[in-house]
Amino acid sequence: MKTIDVCISPDLLHLYKLEGKIVVVVDILRATSCMTTALANGVKSIIPVATLEECFEYKQKGYLAAAERDGRTAEGFDLGNSPFSYMDPSFKGKTIVVTTTNGTQAITLSRNASQILIGSFLSKSAMIQYLANQELDVLVLCSGWRGSFNMEDTLYGGALISGLEGVFHHESDSALMAKRLYESARYDMMKYLEDSTHFKRLSRLNSYNDIQFCMTEDLYSILAVMQGGELVPLS
Amino acid sequence: MKTIDVCISPDLLHLYKLEGKIVVVVDILRATSCMTTALANGVKSIIPVATLEECFEYKQKGYLAAAERDGRTAEGFDLGNSPFSYMDPSFKGKTIVVTTTNGTQAITLSRNASQILIGSFLSKSAMIQYLANQELDVLVLCSGWRGSFNMEDTLYGGALISGLEGVFHHESDSALMAKRLYESARYDMMKYLEDSTHFKRLSRLNSYNDIQFCMTEDLYSILAVMQGGELVPLS
Repeated sequence: MKTIDVCISPDLLHLYKLEGKIVVVVDILRATSCMTTALANGVKSIIPVATLEECFEYKQKGYLAAAERDGRTAEGFDLGNSPFSYMDPSFKGKTIVVTTTNGTQAITLSRNASQILIGSFLSKSAMIQYLANQELDVLVLCSGWRGSFNMEDTLYGGALISGLEGVFHHESDSALMAKRLYESARYDMMKYLEDSTHFKRLSRLNSYNDIQFCMTEDLYSILAVMQGGELVPLS
Repeated sequence: MKTIDVCISPDLLHLYKLEGKIVVVVDILRATSCMTTALANGVKSIIPVATLEECFEYKQKGYLAAAERDGRTAEGFDLGNSPFSYMDPSFKGKTIVVTTTNGTQAITLSRNASQILIGSFLSKSAMIQYLANQELDVLVLCSGWRGSFNMEDTLYGGALISGLEGVFHHESDSALMAKRLYESARYDMMKYLEDSTHFKRLSRLNSYNDIQFCMTEDLYSILAVMQGGELVPLS
């Protein structure tokens, strides 16, 4: 049987082999939720970059550029990290370049995988259905917060493991933990997250609506895949 | 209010400051449970060393030497990592030198802490009572398994956080996760562990009784503290 595992922090990625695997990168609050939202609303592609400098170079070439650091829009950029800002009808058919505190770094670290997908609760069931029909092993890479474990990314890992029970085998304690957390939290994830650090950090920044949106399951059926350095809708 | 946190893997220890803190090192299956058992049964002190070579040097000098690698007694040593083997009445008043796959490495990594204590379910309540009366912040360091997250060490971290609620403040997602896991598992920890990797690994090695013993709460009231390179009973 195929296996699924969860890496709970990019700082533990050295413990995993990426070659020959599908890596699902997840940064629920908010990078990968924004990316899903953008593609679902007609954005043509997203170029994730690791640094503010790279992002600024693209901006100077005329790209739409989104940059978030520590929960805020970085100075000098068009867009930050709120999913609502990616619904702008004028973005349809365009490419957006994005850098964020954690999520885009995790994408960069996944480059040796056979396929890189972007995870979000917004398209959870589409992801489960897609993975169920693939032949490769799967690793969910949680972006975390500056290397630390975080609750919401791990919950998403648990959601995939729970949804793929019987199709994928899991044997690590991190997979077991993620599954158990999700199964405790699934019927009221907002309440479950209330005491978490990112929830409190974003609530202080008046981003409660963003959190609520990012924790919504199955709003979209689109999935994002890395192809030639760009995230595009998986066809 | 003082804070308590949990580092869920030695490979994430770079994210934490140890200076000025009490670090509670835990390797429930089985290193720190064995150490607690040894001191509770009259062993005078334990010298934890990181490598088999160091351990062997002590053995040649006439010390009792215990060495475990991958769940088995390493060749050429007197003792392995079963708590029952540390109850030998002939060990009373002696010093034992110990190296294990994960636990003794975690102790070595904690050397910059103000105080290093050894955690086990066997003396859980004694630890909670001791910490409640200290002024320093606390970090629980889970030994894990070769850098990976493990269930039983995290459960112990959660047991301390849960038992110190109202006395210590916690704010990280790893602390919150550990607390929630423990509060789900507390009334039947053996059942909760059944699917975990270490449980399965040790069960294959016929160590079911060891696991059951290590998951027993409050058998002893003794705590072990590092003093001058040796673990001795905390007075």
